[in-house]
Amino acid sequence: MKLIIAIIQDEDAGEVISHLNEAEIQVTRLATKGGFLRSGNTTIMTGVDDEKVDEALKIIEENSKSRTQYATLPSSCGAMHGFILAPIEVKVGGATVFVLDVDQFHKF
Amino acid sequence: MKLIIAIIQDEDAGEVISHLNEAEIQVTRLATKGGFLRSGNTTIMTGVDDEKVDEALKIIEENSKSRTQYATLPSSCGAMHGFILAPIEVKVGGATVFVLDVDQFHKF
Amino acid sequence: MKLIIAIIQDEDAGEVISHLNEAEIQVTRLATKGGFLRSGNTTIMTGVDDEKVDEALKIIEENSKSRTQYATLPSSCGAMHGFILAPIEVKVGGATVFVLDVDQFHKF
Ligand code: NI
Ligand code: NI
Ligand code: NI
Repeated sequence: MKLIIAIIQDEDAGEVISHLNEAEIQVTRLATKGGFLRSGNTTIMTGVDDEKVDEALKIIEENSKSRTQYATLPSSCGAMHGFILAPIEVKVGGATVFVLDVDQFHKF
Repeated sequence: MKLIIAIIQDEDAGEVISHLNEAEIQVTRLATKGGFLRSGNTTIMTGVDDEKVDEALKIIEENSKSRTQYATLPSSCGAMHGFILAPIEVKVGGATVFVLDVDQFHKF
Repeated sequence: MKLIIAIIQDEDAGEVISHLNEAEIQVTRLATKGGFLRSGNTTIMTGVDDEKVDEALKIIEENSKSRTQYATLPSSCGAMHGFILAPIEVKVGGATVFVLDVDQFHKF
């Protein structure tokens, strides 16, 4: 048994968790303190059998990995100022993942 | 020294924590993200000496283990619709517990 | 790689985190459940290379360790009752720190 602790972006949390659940991996989602720092992050925690660790890591990676998106400001903004906005590159996603050994595991 | 991480139901958290405290085991309670998933859960975290692990686990089990309760809808509901409600079985409680080895422990 | 989990007071969190960041140590801040217990605490989590553990612990200690402060009640209170308040000793700060071995670490 291993305990996986993953810090992912809020916007990826839904996909990561639902795909883990599809693989019958239950997840606990911890609240990250609203504040000046990393306020857009979620910490998920899941216990998995040793032979499911790779599968869980693959699901986390596929649904949260760092990637580039294109964003534009809200169109009302461009319209108001009478010009057309070029999309800008935004880096989104990314995950930091720790896998820990579990000494004992219990379900009560 | 071990670190115990337990995911329990919100409604059991008070009893679990107060009984751990009576046994002089201090607990940190982490907020679980409100959301579509497991929103009624609380994660507690406590560091205990090796020889107190069994006692802590016993307290967690006794105060959070999965059990059946009987519930009825609010009586205003039955009254309004003019019938008597039979109590329904609800499964409550349950805990998922991880015990981890601690490499270093400090109190500053 | 080690995972450091530290429970510190809310009021020390800003200093601890900004000094860790200056040392290029990234931190995730978990929300502690508002409630009857330890409601003024914050849990921080950070993964550090083995050779940076001592530095991280020193930063946490220096910015959160238990200390005595002097406080007075709000002056409006003294004024209202027509007397002068002596400052009282208050113990603030303090940290509980766990260092855990990490089996695998990934950045996606
Ligand atoms: Ni999907
Ligand atoms: Ni009781
Ligand atoms: Ni400073």
